[in-house]
Amino acid sequence: MEKDGGGVAAGGWRFQPNQALMAASSLSVRGVLTKIMANIDNESEDTRPRIPLGHGDPSAFPCFRTAPEAVDAVVSALRSGQFNCYAPCAGLAPARRAIADYLSGDLPYKLSPDDVYLTNGCAQAIEIVVSILARPGANILLPRPGYQFYAARAAYNGVEVRYFNLLPESKWEVDLDGLEALADENTVAMVIVNPGNPCGNTFTYQHLAKVANTAKKLGIMIIADEVYEHLTFGSNPFVPMGMFGEVVPVLTLGSISKRWVVPGWRLGWIVTNDPNGVLHQTKIVECLKNYLDISCDPTTFVQGAIPQIIRNTNDDFLRHTISVLRQTADICYDKLKEIDSIRCPSKPEGSMFVMVKLDLSRLEDIHDDMDFCSKLAKEELVIVLPGCAVGFKNWLRITFAVAPSALEDGLERLKSFCLKHSKRSC
Amino acid sequence: MEKDGGGVAAGGWRFQPNQALMAASSLSVRGVLTKIMANIDNESEDTRPRIPLGHGDPSAFPCFRTAPEAVDAVVSALRSGQFNCYAPCAGLAPARRAIADYLSGDLPYKLSPDDVYLTNGCAQAIEIVVSILARPGANILLPRPGYQFYAARAAYNGVEVRYFNLLPESKWEVDLDGLEALADENTVAMVIVNPGNPCGNTFTYQHLAKVANTAKKLGIMIIADEVYEHLTFGSNPFVPMGMFGEVVPVLTLGSISKRWVVPGWRLGWIVTNDPNGVLHQTKIVECLKNYLDISCDPTTFVQGAIPQIIRNTNDDFLRHTISVLRQTADICYDKLKEIDSIRCPSKPEGSMFVMVKLDLSRLEDIHDDMDFCSKLAKEELVIVLPGCAVGFKNWLRITFAVAPSALEDGLERLKSFCLKHSKRSC
Ligand SMILES: Cc1ncc(COP(=O)(O)O)c(C=O)c1O
Ligand SMILES: Cc1ncc(COP(=O)(O)O)c(C=O)c1O
Repeated sequence: MEKDGGGVAAGGWRFQPNQALMAASSLSVRGVLTKIMANIDNESEDTRPRIPLGHGDPSAFPCFRTAPEAVDAVVSALRSGQFNCYAPCAGLAPARRAIADYLSGDLPYKLSPDDVYLTNGCAQAIEIVVSILARPGANILLPRPGYQFYAARAAYNGVEVRYFNLLPESKWEVDLDGLEALADENTVAMVIVNPGNPCGNTFTYQHLAKVANTAKKLGIMIIADEVYEHLTFGSNPFVPMGMFGEVVPVLTLGSISKRWVVPGWRLGWIVTNDPNGVLHQTKIVECLKNYLDISCDPTTFVQGAIPQIIRNTNDDFLRHTISVLRQTADICYDKLKEIDSIRCPSKPEGSMFVMVKLDLSRLEDIHDDMDFCSKLAKEELVIVLPGCAVGFKNWLRITFAVAPSALEDGLERLKSFCLKHSKRSC
Repeated sequence: MEKDGGGVAAGGWRFQPNQALMAASSLSVRGVLTKIMANIDNESEDTRPRIPLGHGDPSAFPCFRTAPEAVDAVVSALRSGQFNCYAPCAGLAPARRAIADYLSGDLPYKLSPDDVYLTNGCAQAIEIVVSILARPGANILLPRPGYQFYAARAAYNGVEVRYFNLLPESKWEVDLDGLEALADENTVAMVIVNPGNPCGNTFTYQHLAKVANTAKKLGIMIIADEVYEHLTFGSNPFVPMGMFGEVVPVLTLGSISKRWVVPGWRLGWIVTNDPNGVLHQTKIVECLKNYLDISCDPTTFVQGAIPQIIRNTNDDFLRHTISVLRQTADICYDKLKEIDSIRCPSKPEGSMFVMVKLDLSRLEDIHDDMDFCSKLAKEELVIVLPGCAVGFKNWLRITFAVAPSALEDGLERLKSFCLKHSKRSC
């Protein structure tokens, strides 16, 4: 037994890291925000609070504290002692039934509990859906700007990604002609996020119908990311993509993370919206079950609490969340209008975000969005996500899901930052 | 918009299931047990209780109820409202520190919190470790009999599996010569499960030292699955593989599932036991972090409770679990000796299982282990896992982690089943 480490460390080891993972070391939102925050000087004399307008997790603000009924439901599931056990791979039956009923409320047909598969948040739902569709040569269509987790999982699984545009001048609707032109015989699915991250839009029924028909024409399924479902506060009501399950098979992904403001509870779902049974016939459902057999599960007692969480949560909580978001979306839109070097193409109507365009020509000594956000963090302690992290360079994604006073403070600092860095016109 | 489903269902769809997943539709323990239980006639007049000696989840039995202190820790983390948020990808810092300290207690060096990565149970730890080692052509060495989840994840990731034997006649020690003969330049790691599932053995310090030296010689890392750590009740104390981290880099996998009897809480870990820094130099740690960036997390408030769970859990609880297991292991071993057609090579000393060999020559009308277990379920309502589910055909894995009275009842029924089916000797 050699005692010193020399021989051990000096090569000769036969293991190596998975190269697909080294490559997928991508532009994750968390990664980019960490870089931005590294610009803040912890020794500085600036004692103002940091304003986090970067990520979509308002759970720390008292005005976004989850419903006490939801907490009570989890506590009582836990204290019952009935949910310390492993759960079935697809999830506990009463939780699947409760979610099927909850989502059926918005649909023209009734979902069965067997249509619902529980996951560790919507993030694992994305992981699973991308994994089951992976095959050599396959490609999927993703929106740009968009939530990059899809691209990261696709890179890991060797699935090619092709981007279709969301059009800022048309309320971020899908460029349908561009979408059609992208697809070929190896295209298997398209992703639609509604309400939108990062755009803060809510698609109309008519537009979703067009998307469904285009997908049907192309022979591809729709992955409908509805993690922000019902977080809408503009003129368009939330319409689930499952509404068009008769036209095209839809896998709907969701979670309690956003509507209940509990992203740390890690409970989400995949739902087959497919009254024609296409996903069974094509064995996608069988493959999904196989993946669930070999993947990790959401915490059993959170599953156990789901029927009570859904049944007991007071409407007042849900209404209150929406009304705070409506208020902060207004504040955000109005304040941004006062800033010359930032252009906001449309007022946010859903989710927690707005996308705005930087006018670099009006700014001095700012190279790009990353530079803008780095300097903003350093000088004003305000954190904003650079557009590059959502595939839209020289734009910004601003979260308005923060307390109204913090938002006002943050936007005021953003404004004075832009003034300070603006080109002096003569 | 076509209204009938005809055109929709009749092909033309371009998506197909991932074939690697269709193939990995393997012999999962859950899958096999479901098949076995399907033999029970729900309409039968047999009103005796079912006795579950098939799976390793005793959480439903009052004598294995988790410590109230652990439940209180989770409730207070949840009620604090501080842990509704997303957690960092590697886990909350205080939880990582608490686990580092907890595991350092058994080691000759001190782990840092940075050595600890939190996972969704030990199952996700396995998923991650297999994923980061995957590269074209790589192979890993797995014990036979063994916990098949490794093989399932390896199949999914395209990693070749080679089996080394555990020797029933030598207290299930590793066949070291056989192990060496299996390895080649594409071998990257070996898995060791201690205390053992399915064998119920506990490796000695001396044997683990030999394993470490063999791995070093082969240039491969050790994946040490210690999910049953400290569940030992024989003459060998539990020795962590990390003890030999100076000799060979060890990734230790564990969770609170077994020792705290809370598999549904879904909290586990990967720990780098590597004082020489080999895993950093070879970029395995970087790759691990990349994977954590794009994979799902354990529930934040369970992470938040970990320091209290570890600090507050009364020793009485842990001692009580061990003493019940010692008692049920004894019952099991003694009772099995009375059965002619079953041979138990050694008394279990750890985990919750024992492996026994079927003597088919003494049994009439029983073809194999699967047939044995199916008929046993049908005739006696006793569920036992056929050896084929752990890679050892015509053996059985019996769980003794059940209430003593249920165990006695189950083994009595097993005995009369064997008597009923035994060949009448003349
Ligand atoms: C569009 C989108 N999908 C999925 C997720 C992941 O949600 P969860 O917290 O349920 O995993 C997020 C999180 O921000 C998101 O914005
Ligand atoms: C050897 C072994 N490793 C890992 C696991 C998974 O443990 P967890 O419940 O922590 O995911 C098990 C579960 O039975 C096991 O037996």
